[in-house]
Formats: sequence, structure tokens, C-alpha cells
Amino acid sequence: MTFSTDVHYARRLDEQDELAAFRERFVVDDPELVYLDGNSLGRLPKQSLDRARDVVARQWGQGLIRSWNEHWLDLPRRVGAKIARLIGAADDEVTLADSTSVNLFKLTGAALRVPRTRGRTKIVTDDLNFPTDLYILRSAAELAGADCSVHVVASPDGMTVPFAALAEAIDSTTALVALSHTAFKSAYVYDMPAVTNLAHEAGALVLWDLSHSVGAMPVSLSSAAVDLAVGCTYKYLNGGPGAPALLYVRRDLQESIRNPIAGWFGHHDQLAFHADYQPAAGIRRMLTGTPPILSLALIEPGVDLVLEAGVERLRAKSVHQTEYLIGLWECLLAPLGFALGSPREPERRGSHVALCHPEGLRIARALVDQMHVIPDFRAPDTLRFGLCPLYTTYAELHRAVSALHDVTRDGRYRCYPGRRRGVT
Amino acid sequence: MTFSTDVHYARRLDEQDELAAFRERFVVDDPELVYLDGNSLGRLPKQSLDRARDVVARQWGQGLIRSWNEHWLDLPRRVGAKIARLIGAADDEVTLADSTSVNLFKLTGAALRVPRTRGRTKIVTDDLNFPTDLYILRSAAELAGADCSVHVVASPDGMTVPFAALAEAIDSTTALVALSHTAFKSAYVYDMPAVTNLAHEAGALVLWDLSHSVGAMPVSLSSAAVDLAVGCTYKYLNGGPGAPALLYVRRDLQESIRNPIAGWFGHHDQLAFHADYQPAAGIRRMLTGTPPILSLALIEPGVDLVLEAGVERLRAKSVHQTEYLIGLWECLLAPLGFALGSPREPERRGSHVALCHPEGLRIARALVDQMHVIPDFRAPDTLRFGLCPLYTTYAELHRAVSALHDVTRDGRYRCYPGRRRGVT
Repeated sequence: MTFSTDVHYARRLDEQDELAAFRERFVVDDPELVYLDGNSLGRLPKQSLDRARDVVARQWGQGLIRSWNEHWLDLPRRVGAKIARLIGAADDEVTLADSTSVNLFKLTGAALRVPRTRGRTKIVTDDLNFPTDLYILRSAAELAGADCSVHVVASPDGMTVPFAALAEAIDSTTALVALSHTAFKSAYVYDMPAVTNLAHEAGALVLWDLSHSVGAMPVSLSSAAVDLAVGCTYKYLNGGPGAPALLYVRRDLQESIRNPIAGWFGHHDQLAFHADYQPAAGIRRMLTGTPPILSLALIEPGVDLVLEAGVERLRAKSVHQTEYLIGLWECLLAPLGFALGSPREPERRGSHVALCHPEGLRIARALVDQMHVIPDFRAPDTLRFGLCPLYTTYAELHRAVSALHDVTRDGRYRCYPGRRRGVT
Repeated sequence: MTFSTDVHYARRLDEQDELAAFRERFVVDDPELVYLDGNSLGRLPKQSLDRARDVVARQWGQGLIRSWNEHWLDLPRRVGAKIARLIGAADDEVTLADSTSVNLFKLTGAALRVPRTRGRTKIVTDDLNFPTDLYILRSAAELAGADCSVHVVASPDGMTVPFAALAEAIDSTTALVALSHTAFKSAYVYDMPAVTNLAHEAGALVLWDLSHSVGAMPVSLSSAAVDLAVGCTYKYLNGGPGAPALLYVRRDLQESIRNPIAGWFGHHDQLAFHADYQPAAGIRRMLTGTPPILSLALIEPGVDLVLEAGVERLRAKSVHQTEYLIGLWECLLAPLGFALGSPREPERRGSHVALCHPEGLRIARALVDQMHVIPDFRAPDTLRFGLCPLYTTYAELHRAVSALHDVTRDGRYRCYPGRRRGVT
């Protein structure tokens, strides 16, 4: 089929989509709503409705304290092991814990205290990284000592960071290279093996934030020999709002790292209530306090759907869909002043597409209020369209671009003041 | 009525209990089960069943990302303000966040960096404190610098700590006094105003862990001029397994403290995605990452029940119930070798009663398996009986003591090996 801006073309693509049936596995109560913000908060799997009832009514209500042993103590590692399969890690290298921010703090703090980084004082990151990552890295650096600092490599185009710029920043004083694998705004995707290798050659550890990758992008932490990773479960994994985050530590590092927030869930003999802390063997030592079970338990149904569909197939559809969206942009939106804010090469682009327009904020509001299309907006001028190949259809993308086109061409956004909205 | 070990006496006490109707507000699917572990995990309020459905199906499933603005962003502070009324704090002094352990780390780290504690290197706590509190205090001390250390005041009887012992430990080098208001094992309750005053006179800050107090004990943080506090929501507040924890900072300290894990939920303009961190005004700066919404949202129904019953009335019933239980112990259990592991004076005792027996572990197992009575066990020899005045009946206490008596007298625990179980 030849690309066309016609809606019939979109419908034919949906008919040929071998993953189309997965949409039925999600709650889609309003078929008129075009939801393109699954990269902030994924949709609700139908299975999670049953799971919520079971966890609350049966496990909590009936099982009471007994459910800790029967259902909950093992949950972080059990679901972590499933996520491990999505990111090319071993079962015992991934757990669920806390928030992405807290996990990033813990792993950064741990990285700065392993023998290998002793005497090294620099953390290297970039300005494409999610802002909270920058705050957390600076927090951890400050606690590590006055001479430790965070070096932020600047993106020359606000969209990508050249390998050479990273290579220049990473040197023999670098303790840790901490980057988002897929950038939250532009969807730029780093070459994980190459950057990891670069860091390792300089003697540094590397930590990847997989928040905008996991569930959408094939990642192989093991084959790239990645040291540390964190990531969200409420985006492409559809784990629910604020669901606990993933935390990865390569197996051969696990015995040498120390959790800077040592708590009873990471104690080697948690229920003995020893006055002295002894870290558990393996990844469990990175746990701290009591995990929020209801939020934790609802991660699994979304992960199961991704496993069932397969990350490679999801990635193939995602690439095809982002290409389709960019094709529509080129024909319909570029003439109206929209710039592409994501890399053009699919292998350097994640599962969302950024479109920039000086009136982006007001246009986003008009899309939501008038057109029943939900993208999200990132200051100062970026609309993000998140494509979740488990449930996003080509027809939805066509409707979103048509709406964007009409709202902009007709100036229907001009009734709005310039206020922000949206949460990743 | 004169105290009696007869079950009819227990039934008459239940008939006269003005809070008895609150039991109907909880899911009690198995009326034969005597659940005395509400100080580890409180029962499920019926209202929480509806709330869970609403949060998952409607707020997440239908509202999707829009629910952040409509329901979730304000949740930590809105429910925090309700909890503030239970602990004698102002609305804007309490928020919900993370786990108790992580909050303790954040507040301890913050306390060690305010101007008032500069040059002070000692954190004072005691060995009645919950083990994770000790681990966390040491973690925070270690990150604060090599000269910072945790001084653990020893309890001479494993049950209480004399005021004089604390007074001896707190000196001009003390930065922070961090204690559990109600001890997790013995239920010993500190004189909060007196200890707070002692710390303040030495120029130190004070941090109370309210985990075993909030919802069961009247506490007035404001009138005692308490600086900092944390606490669990899943015990006497019935917020659900691992529900996020409370965090309190006295208002006049809020602008001077810095969150050692600075994250985007504590940024003054969170959705502007600034590269630089600027703390929010007030308590919100102590938030870090995205909170686990499903667990967070289910805290409110339990808090509402405590507010409706009133902490003073709950405390009066709790005192009466613990006195009743101790009366039964004296007549029926002391002769079988059980020692009272809680203070005898009700004003120094929280809402659980500890009974110690050399065979405590096996006896606890027999109670659960054979008698359908759930206490919990804390190594090496302590059975805890948690009395939640919202739903615990006198008849249940009578049944529990009768079961304990029979199991012990008849040696019916001897079939069990010595393995641990239980989670607070």
C-alpha cells in the first residue's frame, strides 16, 4: 500500500495489524476519545479490574496479615523477574521498589560508594534527561561529598546528543554516567551498548533510566553489560498511576553495592528484627520500607500483556506507527508551522513523536477540549503523541492529526490563555 | 460491674461499648476469626472497597491522565490535612509520601542540614525503636559525614527507657533525638512533651515515629512543639498494606529544611520541567517522586472512620480493653508462665499488649493454626495482641486469652518447630 493521508488508508493499516486484538484487553469506555498520552499514564488493562478486587477484598479483607507471607513478600521480585524478560536481564537482577526518583537516588548513592568509583567525583548526564533525574543526581552527589558534582552535557538541538559530546565529557574522574535511554521530550534513543561501552572504557559505571523504553523498546541490559537501571511501570507497562518503579543491578555487582537507605525490607533476615543491619543477598538489599501493595500488585497484568504481545512485535508496530504519524505531519502539519521535535531515523526514536509549535500550549488545550484528543504538552512548545502499540490504532492517529490540522488552520486555539497542564 | 474472667462479663462490656457499631463499617467475613494484629495491618473498611473500584475503574480507566489534575495531585496534602487533626498538627504541616522508612531518611537528612544543628554530630535514639528506624538513622548519619553517629540508649528492662537515661544521652553535640512514640514491641509510650522539651533545651531537634500511635493515641504535636514526625497509615488508620506514610514538619521549620532526595513532586513549579530544582513552599517540598495512587487513595476511608469515632473515645476504649486483657492475663496466663511485656500503667502503654513466654513462637503458631486467633510474634519470645478499638470486641479478647490458656496448659504448641512468621 502506498502512504496516503486518507482515512481509508489508516483503516486498512488497522485491519492488517496483527496486534489489533490487544486493544480489547484494555478498558476503552469512550471509543470517541483519542488517547495519545499512554507514555505518561498507560490505559487500564481489564485484568487489572479483577486484580484490584482480589487484592483488596480477598487478600487484604480476608487474608489480613497472612497475605504478607502468602501473596505480598515475594511480589517485588516475582513481578520484577517478569520485567527482567522485557529488558534483557536475568530474573534475579530486577525488583520493584519505591518510585523511579527514589530508586535513582539509591542506585546513584550506591554507585558512588563502590570501590570501583573511589576517588572519582563526576556524574555525567545530559539536558535531555527528565528534570527529576537531574535533581536526584545532584541530591546524591551533594550527599556523597563536597567534591562530587553533576556534569550536564548540553544537547545542541534540544533533541539529540552527539556521541562525541558524551565522549568528551566522560573521563577518568567520572564515577557514573546516568542517562535516559529514551528522552522524555524528543523520544531520542541512545545507542545503549555504545554509550555503556564508552563509560566502561573510562572506568565509570553506567545507569540507564528506562522509563520511556520499558514495554515499548527492545532493551538488552545483559548483552550491553549495563551496571544499573531504573524505570517507570505506569507508562508503556500500564501498571497504574504512580505504580512502584523497577530497579536493576547487574548480578556481579549486587554483592558489592550498599543501599544508602538501608531498611528492613532489604535486611537479610527481615523478620528477626535485629538491631543491626545486614544486607540481604542479591537485589533484595535494594528494598527499603514496606512497599505499597495495592499499587504494586496491579503492575503484573500490564506486564503480562507486553510479554504476551512480545516486545519485538510491539516495537515493529511502534516504528510503523511513528513513521505513519510523521508522514501525516509532513503532509498536513509542517505547512501549518509544526516542526518535528523527534529524530527522523526510527532507530534513534522511541514510541512517541514530538511536534513543536509556538502556540503548542493553546493548541494542546483545544485538542483536549474541542476535539476529544489527548496528547500531552511539555513546555515551552512541545506536543507529545505517545503511541502505545498495545492499544493505539492508526485511525486514532489519523483523527489526531486531522484534529490538530483543523484546530490550527482555523485558529480555534485562540480562545485559550497560556496555562500549563499534564503530568508524565 | 466487677471484673470477671467469665465470658458473660466480656459480652456485657461489648453491650455497653458506645463504639461497638464501628465494627460494622469493616469487612469481617469470618466472624469466628479473632484478629488481634491490627497494629500490623488494620482491617479493610467497607468504604475502601467502593473507593478501590472508583479509583481503578473510573479515575484511572476513564479519567486517564486527566485524573492527575482532578483527583490525584492534591491527594497527599488533602488526606494529610485530615491526619493532621488526629495528631494535633495544622492542616499544612502533614503530607503523605513514600514509606515510613524513606520519610524517616528524608527528615533525618534534612534535620542534619538545618543551621540549628550545624556542628552537632550525634543522633540519639533507643533500642526500643523499630529496627528499620535504627538502620535508617545510621544510613542518614553515614551520608551526613564521617563524624556523625547514632547513639542508642539501652532499655534496662527491654520494655521502657527511663527519662534520666535519655537526659544523660542528650547533650550539646546532639543534633536530633529520634524515637518511636509508642514502642513496637512493649507498647511503652514516651512522654512526648517532656522528651521534646528535653531535646529542645539541649538545642536538638526531635523526630517522633508515630507508627504505633496515630489513630490509637491522642497526640498533640503542636502543643509539644514537635519538630518532625513520620508514621504508618496501615496500622490503626486501616489504610491498607504498605500504604504511603505520613510526614510532618512544623510550619516554622518548613522554609528552612531541604529535602535530601529532591524530586519533581517537591518542585515549586513541577509541571514547568525546569532543569534546576527550586523547592516548593511548605510541606510539599518533602515529596520526591510520583506517589503510588491506588495505595494512597485507600488511606482516606480509614482516616475518616477514626475522625468520626474520635481519638479520645478510641483511646478510652483502648485503655479499657488493654486493662481488661491484662486482668485476664493476671488470672489465667501468669500462672502458666506468661510475663507481661508491656507497662502496667495505662498512661505509659499504647494500644497493644505484649505477653512473653519462652515458647512464645510455637504458642503463636498454635493460636493461628488451631484456635483461629491471630496475634503476632516478635522474636525472641513476645506475642503482641493489638487492640483496635474500632473493631476489636471484648468477647474476642476473652476468646484469645482462653485459647492461649488452653493451648499452653495442654501443650498443644509442641507439635510445631521453631520458625518465625509475621510482618508488622
